[in-house]
Amino acid sequence: MAQLRIALAQTDPAVGDLAANTGKLVEWTRRAADRGAHLVVFTEMFLTGYPVEDLVLRNSFVEASIAAVDAAARRLAEEGLGEIAVVVGYVDRADLAPRVGQPKGSPLNAVALLHRGRVVTRTAKHHLPNYGVFDEYRYFVRGDRLPIFRLHGVDVAIAVCEDLWQDGGPVAVAGRAGAGLLVVPNASPYERGKDDARLELVARRAREAGCALAYANQVGGQDELVFDGDSLIVSASGELLARASQFTEELLVADLDLPEGAGRLGARDEVDAGDGTLITAERLELSSCPLEPYEPEPATIAPHLDDVAEVYAALVLGVRDYVAKNGFGSVILGLSGGIDSALTATIASDAIGPERVHVVLMPSRYSSDHSLSDAQELVARQGVNARTVPIGGMVDAFEKELALTGLAAENLQARVRGMILMSLSNEHGHLVLTTGNKSELATGYSTLYGDSAGGFAPIKDVLKTLVWELARWRNAQAGVANHFLHGFAVPPIPENSITKEPSAELRPGQRDTDSLPEYDVLDRLLDDYVEKDMGSASLVAAGHDPELVARVIRLVDVAEYKRRQYPPGPKITPKNFGRDRRLPITNRWREAAPDTR
Amino acid sequence: MAQLRIALAQTDPAVGDLAANTGKLVEWTRRAADRGAHLVVFTEMFLTGYPVEDLVLRNSFVEASIAAVDAAARRLAEEGLGEIAVVVGYVDRADLAPRVGQPKGSPLNAVALLHRGRVVTRTAKHHLPNYGVFDEYRYFVRGDRLPIFRLHGVDVAIAVCEDLWQDGGPVAVAGRAGAGLLVVPNASPYERGKDDARLELVARRAREAGCALAYANQVGGQDELVFDGDSLIVSASGELLARASQFTEELLVADLDLPEGAGRLGARDEVDAGDGTLITAERLELSSCPLEPYEPEPATIAPHLDDVAEVYAALVLGVRDYVAKNGFGSVILGLSGGIDSALTATIASDAIGPERVHVVLMPSRYSSDHSLSDAQELVARQGVNARTVPIGGMVDAFEKELALTGLAAENLQARVRGMILMSLSNEHGHLVLTTGNKSELATGYSTLYGDSAGGFAPIKDVLKTLVWELARWRNAQAGVANHFLHGFAVPPIPENSITKEPSAELRPGQRDTDSLPEYDVLDRLLDDYVEKDMGSASLVAAGHDPELVARVIRLVDVAEYKRRQYPPGPKITPKNFGRDRRLPITNRWREAAPDTR
Repeated sequence: MAQLRIALAQTDPAVGDLAANTGKLVEWTRRAADRGAHLVVFTEMFLTGYPVEDLVLRNSFVEASIAAVDAAARRLAEEGLGEIAVVVGYVDRADLAPRVGQPKGSPLNAVALLHRGRVVTRTAKHHLPNYGVFDEYRYFVRGDRLPIFRLHGVDVAIAVCEDLWQDGGPVAVAGRAGAGLLVVPNASPYERGKDDARLELVARRAREAGCALAYANQVGGQDELVFDGDSLIVSASGELLARASQFTEELLVADLDLPEGAGRLGARDEVDAGDGTLITAERLELSSCPLEPYEPEPATIAPHLDDVAEVYAALVLGVRDYVAKNGFGSVILGLSGGIDSALTATIASDAIGPERVHVVLMPSRYSSDHSLSDAQELVARQGVNARTVPIGGMVDAFEKELALTGLAAENLQARVRGMILMSLSNEHGHLVLTTGNKSELATGYSTLYGDSAGGFAPIKDVLKTLVWELARWRNAQAGVANHFLHGFAVPPIPENSITKEPSAELRPGQRDTDSLPEYDVLDRLLDDYVEKDMGSASLVAAGHDPELVARVIRLVDVAEYKRRQYPPGPKITPKNFGRDRRLPITNRWREAAPDTR
Repeated sequence: MAQLRIALAQTDPAVGDLAANTGKLVEWTRRAADRGAHLVVFTEMFLTGYPVEDLVLRNSFVEASIAAVDAAARRLAEEGLGEIAVVVGYVDRADLAPRVGQPKGSPLNAVALLHRGRVVTRTAKHHLPNYGVFDEYRYFVRGDRLPIFRLHGVDVAIAVCEDLWQDGGPVAVAGRAGAGLLVVPNASPYERGKDDARLELVARRAREAGCALAYANQVGGQDELVFDGDSLIVSASGELLARASQFTEELLVADLDLPEGAGRLGARDEVDAGDGTLITAERLELSSCPLEPYEPEPATIAPHLDDVAEVYAALVLGVRDYVAKNGFGSVILGLSGGIDSALTATIASDAIGPERVHVVLMPSRYSSDHSLSDAQELVARQGVNARTVPIGGMVDAFEKELALTGLAAENLQARVRGMILMSLSNEHGHLVLTTGNKSELATGYSTLYGDSAGGFAPIKDVLKTLVWELARWRNAQAGVANHFLHGFAVPPIPENSITKEPSAELRPGQRDTDSLPEYDVLDRLLDDYVEKDMGSASLVAAGHDPELVARVIRLVDVAEYKRRQYPPGPKITPKNFGRDRRLPITNRWREAAPDTR
């Protein structure tokens, strides 16, 4: 057996900022070297950030990425970090003839091995995901290589992210090649309720390949995606050896005891990958002799967060990174006294600190007394910046010129509030947070350019029942301070905001249940219709009320246009309305009344 | 040789409305039968409409499509139309085991042959496009069959759309099978300046396959896409035999003289498709004997529109179909006296008639005299519905509560106007049209929730210099009435709106050139940067001013968020900002200052 100290750099790259990411590569490699690591694995497309979407179709961007990885190898050596082996993701290109339907310039979702000032080898993702938020057939061509490099006597193979999730391909070849360790850079976003699918998968693939497996995952918010980290190392038998924390940057270091390389394949062999393709396995030697035996350090296995804590952490990180990465110093939102804006304000306080959160109380003639007092109570508990702007005068000025009734008059109030927030944002540079939840968004229970106006929507993927659950959970954490809780000594959300009946307060005595069913009923139906894609017959068979099924499906189907205008927000489910649910706006399909029967 | 009368149904389906599309299938088949046709070819996915996007991932939708095609076959026979062979696109599914990365349920972009009450055979698109607006790897699995049916002695093969654009696959197999005619249902969107690429391609493929080729294309607006029709029939030598008009529904009928089927392949042969795949060629017989000779009718070859006329027609059709397909009866827009809103109003009048167009004049303290008079002049020339709502009182009401300066104060005026339009839309049910052009949109020269608020953006893909060109062209058509010109006797756009210097009039003496370069300089640069994806070095090498390159690239790169909030509008270029240009919002890549040098 041979020892190896491996470090996984679970980090938060900046999309498009090759210089900053290169700086981080050097900094974290130094930290790994300081910890005595022999190998450090960065995440998928770390140098470019992930996902870069259509940037990859620009030649100048791909050229810059290729130049950056070469420059990074030289710089590491110049800074005395040439001896540690570095595995890092970037964008490269394949030398393929142009072909219709193939992305321009044939970009590769590539990984490089850097050592002693050189890019020693390059490989690329073999299995390209193209479902949910992934569009990789649009952006990349398939890699068809598997590098296996001998480091201190151990044969280390490299695969990329999705290559783990599918049968055949690089993982199968790594097994046949007798690799001692498989390292896998990933950019795998958080999704709620996967249980521990990632650990199960990694353990299964390790057993299949018969080698230890190190899974390095990106962390951080990028537009709607939140990457949760949760990097893992398992043994060849699938035993969990080390695990990084979720939703925070971490250098995960572990000492591994691995078999010495046996060299089952030649220097360059074409291998049937078991998925209908051939993969070229390529052997390289960095250092052939095992290290002198040394005392291993104990590895850490971070505990896994529970379901609600995970969601809350994802929302906080999503907001924090969107604010920071877009160069904002502060946020602003309307505080109504209701639960949605109370939770949004609290997430914002946890994300960037209450001193950078600005709230505006905008009472109208229909606001109840408790609206103002509940909002003021939150301001007092959290110490956020607050001002009050009554909207009466502005609403009157519009109504003087335009005769508005019903919904048009209700929307007017929401739009005046949206304009106040946008005006203050333009004047003072705050990012406007919208406060709408997923139940409202799904059913169209919101005003275009009113409550949906803003730059980021923290709870856009959170159903109303989960809004309450998160609020109660957050209040129960009073006194706790960590990387996603600010440490309020008292429960930050007024109890009355949680317990009172929801109302938009746009007309006298209005209640949400005037327009919508009870939220526990609605949310169960939305989950089955939106997340599970069940048709009307299946929904009724599953016990939902037939009339409600027809009504809610109609609401959801016709609200498509409004949802497209909604700002981005952290995604926690498979069917966040956004890039992972794409429907025509002009569309007459109605589940509720199949047209052919 | 054997005669055959073929009809191409160049039609405008409704996405998701299987019942309406089936009704149209029957109606147009009857028209074809009344014209004596023996074969009628509908467009790609005609029964479901195209594109249906994520609808195809719903089982209930795919099941309904399959049921619809069977029902359509029966209904055609019941209505006495069983003898005419009908080729029509729909959605089917392949019997494949589920696999990660493969669309759920394995949908097929399918085509059925209907005859005598039955679905005689089914096939599916082989080459799936996944670039620009196309996402077909997300939605479909590949077809691997080529049906060849003998109809009145002629062997007719079926391929689908993209199968024509790529080498190898069904077209190659059709050639080897000795087909006499290849029919191809398409849904191919309009794109400016393709010259006559489609005719050239169709002629080339006909020569390659050695058989006549009939290309039936969809027509009509669907969200941002405009399908232009332009259906074609060419001989085996590539000679153009018949051509339908652009941008309008048409049944194109032609008598063809075709070789009698020779039957070079067996009933079911696996053929190397020349693209690395095998295709199963399947022979069917509907009727083996050639028809008694008859007198052919002369075919029509519609003239091709010139460049500017094509663009104008695309915009008119895009607006008309968006209004109609979304169930609106009328539109509303702000009329400033400037060229953008003047052109938008004119397109709307041509699309749905001036009696259904409502304009609002919204003067402020900064509006010049000519703004109001030019707007009034347009109202007089076109007879659209007009009202005037001065915005002073509303602006004052906001400024009383909020101290706004600079851009925040300018945006306020634009937002008050947006709110007035949205309020009138909510009160009276008009669709709000925005009037921003592509030069503004690209550079972020617009107000979020202000002038960009609305439901549809007719000129969102039209650069400012083209706005002027279209306006002059439209005025030159005064007196012409056809399917995309209303027939105004006088030039509908006031000359002064075309010739005066552009200004947003949001502060005293403001001119567009205070913030932007001259539009002819800007538009050339935008075309090179946005459409051609040229990097900063190439832009400078191409003769653009280096400082301007840096400045404009920065404007374009940071305006991404605003562009995402823009409503859909007819697409006329490859890089309309929308589904065919997808960039991260949070993104630090700057072409102007490559980060690695």
